[in-house]
Amino acid sequence: MSTADEAEGSGEDRFIARYFRPLARNPGAFGLIDDAAILTPPAGHDVVLTADAIVGDVHFFRDDPGDAVARKALRVNLSDLAAKGAEPAGFLLSLALPEATGETWIAAFAQGLGDDAERYGCPLLGGDSVRTGGPAMISIAAFGLVPHGAMVARSGARAGDVVMVSGTIGDAALGLLLRRQPERTPAWAYDPAMRAHLAARYLVPEPRNAIAAALRTHASAAMDVSDGLVGDLAKLCRASSLAADIAAPHVPLSGAARQALAADPGLMETMLTGGDDYEVLCTVAPERVASFQAAAAAAQVTVAALGTMRDGQGAHFRDADDKPMRFAKGAYSHF
Amino acid sequence: MSTADEAEGSGEDRFIARYFRPLARNPGAFGLIDDAAILTPPAGHDVVLTADAIVGDVHFFRDDPGDAVARKALRVNLSDLAAKGAEPAGFLLSLALPEATGETWIAAFAQGLGDDAERYGCPLLGGDSVRTGGPAMISIAAFGLVPHGAMVARSGARAGDVVMVSGTIGDAALGLLLRRQPERTPAWAYDPAMRAHLAARYLVPEPRNAIAAALRTHASAAMDVSDGLVGDLAKLCRASSLAADIAAPHVPLSGAARQALAADPGLMETMLTGGDDYEVLCTVAPERVASFQAAAAAAQVTVAALGTMRDGQGAHFRDADDKPMRFAKGAYSHF
Repeated sequence: MSTADEAEGSGEDRFIARYFRPLARNPGAFGLIDDAAILTPPAGHDVVLTADAIVGDVHFFRDDPGDAVARKALRVNLSDLAAKGAEPAGFLLSLALPEATGETWIAAFAQGLGDDAERYGCPLLGGDSVRTGGPAMISIAAFGLVPHGAMVARSGARAGDVVMVSGTIGDAALGLLLRRQPERTPAWAYDPAMRAHLAARYLVPEPRNAIAAALRTHASAAMDVSDGLVGDLAKLCRASSLAADIAAPHVPLSGAARQALAADPGLMETMLTGGDDYEVLCTVAPERVASFQAAAAAAQVTVAALGTMRDGQGAHFRDADDKPMRFAKGAYSHF
Repeated sequence: MSTADEAEGSGEDRFIARYFRPLARNPGAFGLIDDAAILTPPAGHDVVLTADAIVGDVHFFRDDPGDAVARKALRVNLSDLAAKGAEPAGFLLSLALPEATGETWIAAFAQGLGDDAERYGCPLLGGDSVRTGGPAMISIAAFGLVPHGAMVARSGARAGDVVMVSGTIGDAALGLLLRRQPERTPAWAYDPAMRAHLAARYLVPEPRNAIAAALRTHASAAMDVSDGLVGDLAKLCRASSLAADIAAPHVPLSGAARQALAADPGLMETMLTGGDDYEVLCTVAPERVASFQAAAAAAQVTVAALGTMRDGQGAHFRDADDKPMRFAKGAYSHF
């Protein structure tokens, strides 16, 4: 009787049904046929909420594969949940794509998103999709659960706490450097295996959700390192009204990053301020450091001690000669 | 000792502190200094989650004032919460702005957002801000609360239920028509007051959060009308595995829309399929219609009966002569 009674619905409905409905198997997602989703936190739990968007030409390259872009979009949010000690519970996706986006790219995007949703136990619950005249933008709001009052805040550090960080710092910043000048390989990047490691660390982060429980148990404050270690530690200092003293040689580096640094010591600043690490920066009372390291190791994540918190303000880095370091750029900022 | 110890932090921090921190007074927002926010649902409640993005040149005009854009971005999400019978609890904002965006526009945006957050009791809890090389995009994830199991789904309609809609339909679609051709005023739009009414209805929706409780009590199914009454009712029919029979003359119209229709009867299709209404479409058991209308009236919202649900499929509209209507376009779709 009308054109609105066809079983398939609109083009947008078909697009969602084809690529995203298969990902929305959580009962709270209602198979994406409703306006909204439902999250029912277990009694005595808080919902931890975070939202991060990534934009083409700003946070990723236009020729990045769809599955890598999807993974990055979800993982930058998972990284926030990890740093707060929260267990992932689900996410909403707002997907803005240019008209010219091919089906192959979208299919790869959905595949990568679904794989990571499964891997991290963070189901797609809903969202929307729109067209844009600009670059692709993927905005995700992710939800985690913590026992009531157990979220690890930025503001909880105490004087005397040990400053610790997961994994290694600086790989993604070096990977981005290489990506920005594909036509020439700098002298410090002669080794193809090293280049591949750094490129991969920029393309798709490895969020540290495996140590969420260890952070809840042991950390006094935590945040994820997304805008560079120097600037992000300064934020933690401000939130906790304390200062931090850091020995730069204690900052954990990958083999690839150490190779690069040996060839060009000037890269240290890029590594400490470059961002995109998606590691967890946290503070731990001295008597808990060993237990925290053991719990992290059990989750197959290394955590290293960099320095200590004290009264005062600012993040103070010293080099191998115990000289204060100065940085031209504290942290990556979009403004 | 380093450049990272200044009290103000990065440019992005200053931007957020200046315009958005004053809006984030809810304790769960931590003054926007943390990576994440907290929502603690009261015992026995579900969290209703929804996300909708609006994009410049697609959902609003580049020269729309910042406060109107902010209100629209929040209200399209509030409208989803209203239709689900949920009470607003807060939202996350992902704001992507072009480099050229002026401070005046941003200040107006923050003002409009803060006013509506206050008005609808839906506080800013967190989010992020990024630059984009494309048009502005505002992506909001909004959270509501319902008693456990009380969310009003799209799928709950029963045969015999009365199809009802809040407010009036078609105003925003006519407002958009006028906006798209500012250089000439069509014959049906001679009256300046009428043009102003229609333009306002497109620019800033009026979400029906006032009837959320009435919907929880009386509606068997509900959704908001964002993509056009015809297409959205077809979606409700599919979700409920039923058909709907609608008498088009029963669709509630504003005085301005009636004037327009009298001058150009061909506008009926635009009004029924055009979208941007942000009214609530719902189904109500016949014995509850009077109580629902009374509860809605007490909340100062009119609700009108359009037709009935029955076994079958599709949304079937009949005109004043009881003839089946056909529409070239079922619903607005981005794909």
